[in-house]
Amino acid sequence: MSELRVHNFAISLDGFGTGAGLTRDEPFGHAGERLHEWMFATDWWQTGGSRGIDDVFARQHGPGIGAEIMGAGKYGYPGWHEDPDWTGWWGANPPFHTPVFVLTHQPRPSIELEGGTSFHFLDASPAEALAAAKQAANGQDVRLGGGAETIREFLAAGLVDYLHVVVVPILLGRGSRLWDGLEGMEQDYRIEAVSSPAGVTHLTFTRVSTSSTNGTNGG
Amino acid sequence: MSELRVHNFAISLDGFGTGAGLTRDEPFGHAGERLHEWMFATDWWQTGGSRGIDDVFARQHGPGIGAEIMGAGKYGYPGWHEDPDWTGWWGANPPFHTPVFVLTHQPRPSIELEGGTSFHFLDASPAEALAAAKQAANGQDVRLGGGAETIREFLAAGLVDYLHVVVVPILLGRGSRLWDGLEGMEQDYRIEAVSSPAGVTHLTFTRVSTSSTNGTNGG
Repeated sequence: MSELRVHNFAISLDGFGTGAGLTRDEPFGHAGERLHEWMFATDWWQTGGSRGIDDVFARQHGPGIGAEIMGAGKYGYPGWHEDPDWTGWWGANPPFHTPVFVLTHQPRPSIELEGGTSFHFLDASPAEALAAAKQAANGQDVRLGGGAETIREFLAAGLVDYLHVVVVPILLGRGSRLWDGLEGMEQDYRIEAVSSPAGVTHLTFTRVSTSSTNGTNGG
Repeated sequence: MSELRVHNFAISLDGFGTGAGLTRDEPFGHAGERLHEWMFATDWWQTGGSRGIDDVFARQHGPGIGAEIMGAGKYGYPGWHEDPDWTGWWGANPPFHTPVFVLTHQPRPSIELEGGTSFHFLDASPAEALAAAKQAANGQDVRLGGGAETIREFLAAGLVDYLHVVVVPILLGRGSRLWDGLEGMEQDYRIEAVSSPAGVTHLTFTRVSTSSTNGTNGG
């Protein structure tokens, strides 16, 4: 069955997925690129990089994905709604290569870019956005791209099947927290933690199926 | 030189060192014992337990320690100040075996218990408490026992030399947060992370010396 998956979402030790003071020049605010250095060092990001644990996690980002959902804060800087020429951070050929659904209270016409990426703007609930993205994904999985508030909303709504979080050993002190208001979430997931030589810790949350498709055990 | 060390301090993924709703019957509130199950499974806690990574970390708790500092919230339940017979949670022979300095705005006379443990009550700043504990420790290290607020205050004051935090894969949602207001703390520490088969992740913070006792490198 088609899943909703989060990959490579980095947070600080104190749980912030981005810093404070986001601008067009500083998309991650005072966090800068510190949450993503582990990823820049991988072979997936740049040929010749590391090919160990960080790389194999990072590479799960693409395969099997037929659409992405992202929040307005990932798509653009604060104020992009007033810029009719804004088409995202990623230039003419964005790295998504699928339809991307941007959640915003100020929708605009869809945009087609090179390489198979298109942006579609929805003022919708998480469940409605997921339904639209699943239809576009045509049987493949949907990636939930962030940022922190968007992932938190989908987690709170019980819509996320797989969550990969990378805990980076810095303390940001301020920004957008991933974990607020998710008490007891561990009951719905099988959770594993594994630390990497780069100093980050990969957390994976795999939703425990509540369906009975596999029936009971033979014993 | 004598150090101030934190050992075996467990927090949830969302950073809570204890739950909400603490009472005499529920010292950790709604967290119950879930933050400490990893420790109960070790050979250090109970002979016959696991002797791997969780155990070797847990065993660092005792050696080389000459005194402990703890907050009022670790020493007793909310309201213990009004109970003249309260001598802590630990019975006649507490597991400290050293002088223990309890930070409280309502000091009371010192208590001597069995096995070398004594409780001394101080209305003092972190630096003042550390000076008193170091004197009592007689050249050995001082353990900072918690809770979350107390550790946070000592970290903010720059007094902690070694910090061992155990991240447990649960989301408590409410309680006392360890990390608030510590932006940039990573600059003062060498940080390592290692996950254990039990599912917890051990974080160690070792303070980078700011003294020049070793001089410059030969090169």
